[in-house]
Amino acid sequence: MKRIGILTGGGDAPGLNAVIRAAVKTAINQFGCEVVGIRNGYDGFLEKDGIIPLGVEAVRGILPRGGTILGAANRGNPYARKVIRDGQEVTIDVSDEIVKGIREQKLDALLVLGGDGTLHIAHELARKGVPVIGVPKTIDNDIGGTEITFGFDTALNIATEALDRLHTTAESHHRAMVVELMGRDAGFIALNAGVSGGADVILIPEIPFKFESIMKKIRERADKGRKFSLLAVSEGAKPMGGGQVYSRKGDEVYVPRLGGIGQVVAEYIEDQGFESRVTVLGHVQRGGTPTAFDRWLATRYGAAAVRLAARGGFDRMVALASGEITDIELAKAVAVPKRVNPEGDAVITARNIGISFGDE
Amino acid sequence: MKRIGILTGGGDAPGLNAVIRAAVKTAINQFGCEVVGIRNGYDGFLEKDGIIPLGVEAVRGILPRGGTILGAANRGNPYARKVIRDGQEVTIDVSDEIVKGIREQKLDALLVLGGDGTLHIAHELARKGVPVIGVPKTIDNDIGGTEITFGFDTALNIATEALDRLHTTAESHHRAMVVELMGRDAGFIALNAGVSGGADVILIPEIPFKFESIMKKIRERADKGRKFSLLAVSEGAKPMGGGQVYSRKGDEVYVPRLGGIGQVVAEYIEDQGFESRVTVLGHVQRGGTPTAFDRWLATRYGAAAVRLAARGGFDRMVALASGEITDIELAKAVAVPKRVNPEGDAVITARNIGISFGDE
Amino acid sequence: MKRIGILTGGGDAPGLNAVIRAAVKTAINQFGCEVVGIRNGYDGFLEKDGIIPLGVEAVRGILPRGGTILGAANRGNPYARKVIRDGQEVTIDVSDEIVKGIREQKLDALLVLGGDGTLHIAHELARKGVPVIGVPKTIDNDIGGTEITFGFDTALNIATEALDRLHTTAESHHRAMVVELMGRDAGFIALNAGVSGGADVILIPEIPFKFESIMKKIRERADKGRKFSLLAVSEGAKPMGGGQVYSRKGDEVYVPRLGGIGQVVAEYIEDQGFESRVTVLGHVQRGGTPTAFDRWLATRYGAAAVRLAARGGFDRMVALASGEITDIELAKAVAVPKRVNPEGDAVITARNIGISFGDE
Amino acid sequence: MKRIGILTGGGDAPGLNAVIRAAVKTAINQFGCEVVGIRNGYDGFLEKDGIIPLGVEAVRGILPRGGTILGAANRGNPYARKVIRDGQEVTIDVSDEIVKGIREQKLDALLVLGGDGTLHIAHELARKGVPVIGVPKTIDNDIGGTEITFGFDTALNIATEALDRLHTTAESHHRAMVVELMGRDAGFIALNAGVSGGADVILIPEIPFKFESIMKKIRERADKGRKFSLLAVSEGAKPMGGGQVYSRKGDEVYVPRLGGIGQVVAEYIEDQGFESRVTVLGHVQRGGTPTAFDRWLATRYGAAAVRLAARGGFDRMVALASGEITDIELAKAVAVPKRVNPEGDAVITARNIGISFGDE
Repeated sequence: MKRIGILTGGGDAPGLNAVIRAAVKTAINQFGCEVVGIRNGYDGFLEKDGIIPLGVEAVRGILPRGGTILGAANRGNPYARKVIRDGQEVTIDVSDEIVKGIREQKLDALLVLGGDGTLHIAHELARKGVPVIGVPKTIDNDIGGTEITFGFDTALNIATEALDRLHTTAESHHRAMVVELMGRDAGFIALNAGVSGGADVILIPEIPFKFESIMKKIRERADKGRKFSLLAVSEGAKPMGGGQVYSRKGDEVYVPRLGGIGQVVAEYIEDQGFESRVTVLGHVQRGGTPTAFDRWLATRYGAAAVRLAARGGFDRMVALASGEITDIELAKAVAVPKRVNPEGDAVITARNIGISFGDE
Repeated sequence: MKRIGILTGGGDAPGLNAVIRAAVKTAINQFGCEVVGIRNGYDGFLEKDGIIPLGVEAVRGILPRGGTILGAANRGNPYARKVIRDGQEVTIDVSDEIVKGIREQKLDALLVLGGDGTLHIAHELARKGVPVIGVPKTIDNDIGGTEITFGFDTALNIATEALDRLHTTAESHHRAMVVELMGRDAGFIALNAGVSGGADVILIPEIPFKFESIMKKIRERADKGRKFSLLAVSEGAKPMGGGQVYSRKGDEVYVPRLGGIGQVVAEYIEDQGFESRVTVLGHVQRGGTPTAFDRWLATRYGAAAVRLAARGGFDRMVALASGEITDIELAKAVAVPKRVNPEGDAVITARNIGISFGDE
Repeated sequence: MKRIGILTGGGDAPGLNAVIRAAVKTAINQFGCEVVGIRNGYDGFLEKDGIIPLGVEAVRGILPRGGTILGAANRGNPYARKVIRDGQEVTIDVSDEIVKGIREQKLDALLVLGGDGTLHIAHELARKGVPVIGVPKTIDNDIGGTEITFGFDTALNIATEALDRLHTTAESHHRAMVVELMGRDAGFIALNAGVSGGADVILIPEIPFKFESIMKKIRERADKGRKFSLLAVSEGAKPMGGGQVYSRKGDEVYVPRLGGIGQVVAEYIEDQGFESRVTVLGHVQRGGTPTAFDRWLATRYGAAAVRLAARGGFDRMVALASGEITDIELAKAVAVPKRVNPEGDAVITARNIGISFGDE
Repeated sequence: MKRIGILTGGGDAPGLNAVIRAAVKTAINQFGCEVVGIRNGYDGFLEKDGIIPLGVEAVRGILPRGGTILGAANRGNPYARKVIRDGQEVTIDVSDEIVKGIREQKLDALLVLGGDGTLHIAHELARKGVPVIGVPKTIDNDIGGTEITFGFDTALNIATEALDRLHTTAESHHRAMVVELMGRDAGFIALNAGVSGGADVILIPEIPFKFESIMKKIRERADKGRKFSLLAVSEGAKPMGGGQVYSRKGDEVYVPRLGGIGQVVAEYIEDQGFESRVTVLGHVQRGGTPTAFDRWLATRYGAAAVRLAARGGFDRMVALASGEITDIELAKAVAVPKRVNPEGDAVITARNIGISFGDE
C-alpha cells in the first residue's frame, strides 16, 4: 500500500477532521504511505486542484475542529448530475469520468467518509473496481450496520443544552417551548435529547402524532400545576394521516420554507390559547468542536480504515459493534437505513417516565 | 430595617436567582432582617400564597440556576390590566390594590428586579410612597443608567457559540447561514455576538438595512473565494423604508408569526440563488446557568441593593459604573432606554474589520 | 410490587440523580409503586431519618444535576466497619443490622446504584435474601459485565476540554503540560481523553512506564520543531519496576499526599531541563451536570432496573450490551473488574497515530 | 502609516489572536497598511525568520483560538538577558540590538500585546524612539489604567465551572474541596470565581490568612449541618506572618515545586481530621477558546490600537473605561499594578453573603 486517498461527502458531522487526521497519521507512521485528499467530495477527481497532498503538517491542529478541511460536494450525485446543456437542464452520469480520475491517481485505497448517499455511491464505485473503504458519518445516526456514528453525540449535547436552557425559562413563565431538531427520516436526536433534556413531548418521524394529543399532554400537566411544557420535535415529524398539516380557520397552514414543523406546532399551541415559543436549532447541531466521544470514535474509525485497507478489505465499511471497532460489507451497511424502533427499549423508557409521543 | 420583600418581573434573565440569593444572605447575615419573596411579579401582592418566606435554606443551591424561583408575572401591567367584565375585555388600574397589598406586608424595603417596564412601575409605586429599590435586569442590555446588566453576558456567550458552530459548517458547504438573535429594540446581542462570532453581516434595529446590500456583501465574499457568509440578525432588524418587508414575485412575503425577520432574510437569499439556512435561537438565550460574569454582577447587585435599602436610598436603582457598583435615581434610569450608537466605537470597530450592517 | 427502595453508594458519578428520577417516575407511573430513598448508602437503614419518601415532586428538576440527592455513604463497608469501642478502633460487621433494617422497610426491591465495592455488598445482601437490583456506576468505567457506565462520558468531556485548553497554551510556550486524571486502577479516562484531546504521551496503570521513555518522546518532538508536549497521566500510572518512583539527586522524590504521580512526572521533566506545568483535575471530573449520553444511559438504567424488579430479576445488574439495555448476574458483573487491554484496538490506534505510552 | 508590526509577549491569554486579527483587518481594510508579525516576543527582531507577513489569509479562522499565532518569548527580558559566555551565566542587555532590529523593519508603529513586564519594556523602547502602542493583556486582571483586560473573563468562567462541578460532589460527600487558581500577586480570579462559584472560603494574596480561621469556618458550617466546604485559593495566597507556611508534627511542611499553597491548605485540613481533596487548575485557565466578552474586548482593542497608531498616539496603551475604549499613557498604566482592594465593594459583598477570607 503506497498511496491512499480520502474524501468526505454529504452534510457536515463533527469528527470528520478527526477521522482524516487519524487516517493520515496511521498511513504515514504505521504504513509509510503517501496520502492525498480529494476536495469537494467525488468532484475533486474532476477538478483542477481537486487533489491535495495530506502530510502530517496538513492535519495538525484539526482534531478539535468542526467541518471538514476537504470541503463537501456541492454538485450532487455523480450518477445523476444535473447540468445545463444547450440551455436545458439534463441529468447525466459522470461516474465513469470519476472512475477514470480515480485510476489516474493510482490509489491503493480510497477512504470515503459519508452518509447513506455517499456510501451507496462508494459501493457502486467498488463494483467498478475502485478499492473503496467506507467510514460511516451522520449526525442523525441513521446508518445501518454500526451501533453509532460520529457527529451524533455532539448533536445530542447541543440539543440537550438547548432544552436545559429552555427548561428554566419555561418554568418561570408558563409556556410551551418547542424546539425543532434535526432528523428528517430518523428521530434519534429528538428522542435521545428529549429524554436527556427532560422534554414532556417528543415528536419523531417514526411515530406519527395527533395535534390534539399534544394539547392533551400540555393540559394534563397544567391541571397538575405544571404550567409549562417542553417539546422536542424532529424536523421530519409528521401528523397522523399525513397530507394536510394543520388547518387553521379552515385554511391550510403556511409552512415556512426554511422553518418547518416545529413552527407549525408552536403556532397550533398558541391558537389553542396557550403561550408558546419556538427555537429552530438548525445547523448549529452539525458544526463546531466534536465531543470527546465523537473524537474518540472518529479517531478509531480513521486508524481502523487504514488498517483495513492494508489488509485489502475493500468494499467494506468500518463500524462499531459492542463498543469495539469492526467492519462489515458496504452493501449490507447501506441496505437498510436505521430508524427508531417504536417498540424498542428507548421508546418504552421514555413512555415509562411520562413522555408523550403525541400518539395517544 | 426589619423586613424586606423581593420580586422579579418581566422576561427571564440568567442571574435573577443569584440576585435573590445575595440579597437574602446579606439581609439576614448583615442586617438581621427578615426577607419575603413576592411570587409572580407585582401580582403576588394580590394572590393567596403570593408571599413566601425567604430564609437561607430557600436560596441554597440557586446561584447557578437560570429562571427565577419567584416566578414571573403573567398578567401584565397593573396600571393597565386587561380583565373580562360582563363578557367584555376592559382595561383597569389595579395599582392601588397592589399598594395596599404592599402596605399590609409592612415592608421596610421592596427590591424590584426587572427591566424597563417593571422599573417604570417601581418608580410609580415609589411616588405612592412604597420604599422601592430597583435592580436592572435585561438580556438585551437596553436599560439606561448602568453600563451593563446581568443576563446579557450569558446571552452573548450562547449566541457566540451558535455562530462558532455555524461557522465551521458554513465553511465546508458554501452557504449563507442566518442566525436570528434576541433584541426587539436594541441590537446589542447581535452586534456583540456578531463581532465575537465572526459574522460577515450584522443587522440591528438601530441601523435599517437594504436587502440588496446583504447580497452585495455575500457576492463580494464569493468573488474573493469565500463562498460562505454568516449573518447575525436581531429579531427587531428592519429594512430601510420599513413598512413592506420584501416582495417576492410581486407579493408580500409571509412573515411567520413565531419566526421572524431572520427567516425572511434567509428566504430572500435563497431566492437570489444562494443556498441559505436559518437558526432561530429564541429563548435558549434567556435560560440556563448564568456565566461567571453574570453571577458576579448579580451577586454584587443583590448585596448592594440591600445595603442601599439600609441607607434609605429609595426610588433608586443599583447600577454599574466604571466597573464599580453605584446607584442612581430610578426616574433617570428609566428616562431613556439604551440603544446601540450607530456612530460609536463598537460599530466603527465592526466596520473596520469588514463587517457589513447592510446599509451601504 | 408495592414498595421499592433506592440507595447510592461510593463516589459520585454524574447521572446518579437521573437514574433516581427515572426509577421513581417508572415505579409510580408504570407500576403504581411507592418509592423510598435510603440516605447515605447502606447506613441509611441504621439511621434515624435515614429513609425518605421519593415522590414525583422529590425528583423534579434533578435530571441535569450532579451529585446524588440521597447522599453517599461516609462510614465505609458495613462488613468491615471501623468503630471506636472502649477507646480502641475495632472492625465490626454491621451487615446483619442492615439486613434487619431492610426487612423492616418491607421493600419488594432495593435498587443499589454503585461501583464495584457497593455492588459486591449488594450481592452479599442478595445471598441473605434481600431482593437487590444493581445499577453500575463508575466514572472510571472499570465495572465488568457492561459496555459502559454513566459518569464516564462526562468525565471524558471534562478531561478532554482541559487538554484542549492546555494545547493552545503549550503550543505558544514550548512546554510539557502534564494533566493528572482520575483512574486509580483503570486507565480509560486518560486513554480516551488523551486520544480525544491530542495528547502526545499517555500513562495508564495497565502499561507501566519508564521515565526515560517520556523524555525520549518529548525530545523527539522537539527535534522535529514541536517544542511542546501534552501528557495525560492516570493517577494510578506506575513506573516500571514499581517501588521507588524517581530518584532526584540521589534521594527519594517527595510524593505529595494529595497530589500524585502527575506532579512527580512534571518535576522529573523540569529536572531534565524542559519547562513543565501540571494540572490536577481531581474531583472536577466527578461533579456537575452530566452529558447528554450519561443522562440518556442513566435514565434507561433507572427505568430498566424497575422493570427488572417487576419481573423479579433479583441479584442481577442492568447493563449495556451492543447499545441495548440488558441485565446480567451481579456475581458475574463483579467477578472481574474491567481494565484497558494493552493489546486492544484502542491502544493500537493510539500507537498508530504516534502516541507514546512511555514503554518503548 | 504604511507598515505596522505586532508582537505578543509574556504568558498566554485567550483573546491574543482576536487582537491580532482585528488589528490586521483594520490596518489593511481601513488604512491600506502592510502588517508584519514578530515571532516569539521581542526576540523575533533578533531571529532569522523572526518577522512574518500578516495578510488577511494569515488571520483567517483565528478569532476563536487560544494561544497566539506569533508565539511567545521564551528567553526573558531583553534588558536583563541571561546568556552563557565562556561557560558562565552572565546577564546582558540586548535592548539596543532589538531597537536596531526594529529600525531595520521601518515600522510606522509597533503594537505590543502584553502584561506588566512586556509593557514596561515597551515604554522603555518608546523612550528610545520606537513608535510603540500597548495593548494590555493579563488573565490576572492586574494591569492598571484599564478596567479590565481580555483573558480574565475566560479564566473566570473556567474556574467557576470547576467550582460548580466540585460543589455537587462536595455536597454528597462531606468534604472540603480546595481549588487552587491562578493569581500570584492579585487575587481577582479567586475572588470573582469564588463568589460566582459559591465558595465558602476565598484566600487571596491581598488578604493574609490564618490556618485556624479556615478550620473555624469549616467547623461552623458543619455545626449547621453543612458538612462540606468549598475553598477558592489563589496560588499567591499567603498565611499571616508569612515565612513559614504550616508546621506539621513540628516540621516544616513540604511545598510541592509545581503545586503550591492549595495543596498545603488541603493537607492541613486533612490533618485536622476533615476529609479534603485538591484541584490544581493550572494553565487550563490560560488556554482555549476565549469567551464572547474576551473576543469582543480583544477585537475592540485590536482595531482601536491601529486607529491610535494612525493618530500618532505613541507610548500609549488602549484601555477600557466605563465600558468604552480609550487610551492612556503607557507610563501611567504600568506605574501601579492593580490589586484587589480589601476594603472595596467586591470584598464587602463577599463578606456580606457569608464568605470567609480566613482573616477573622
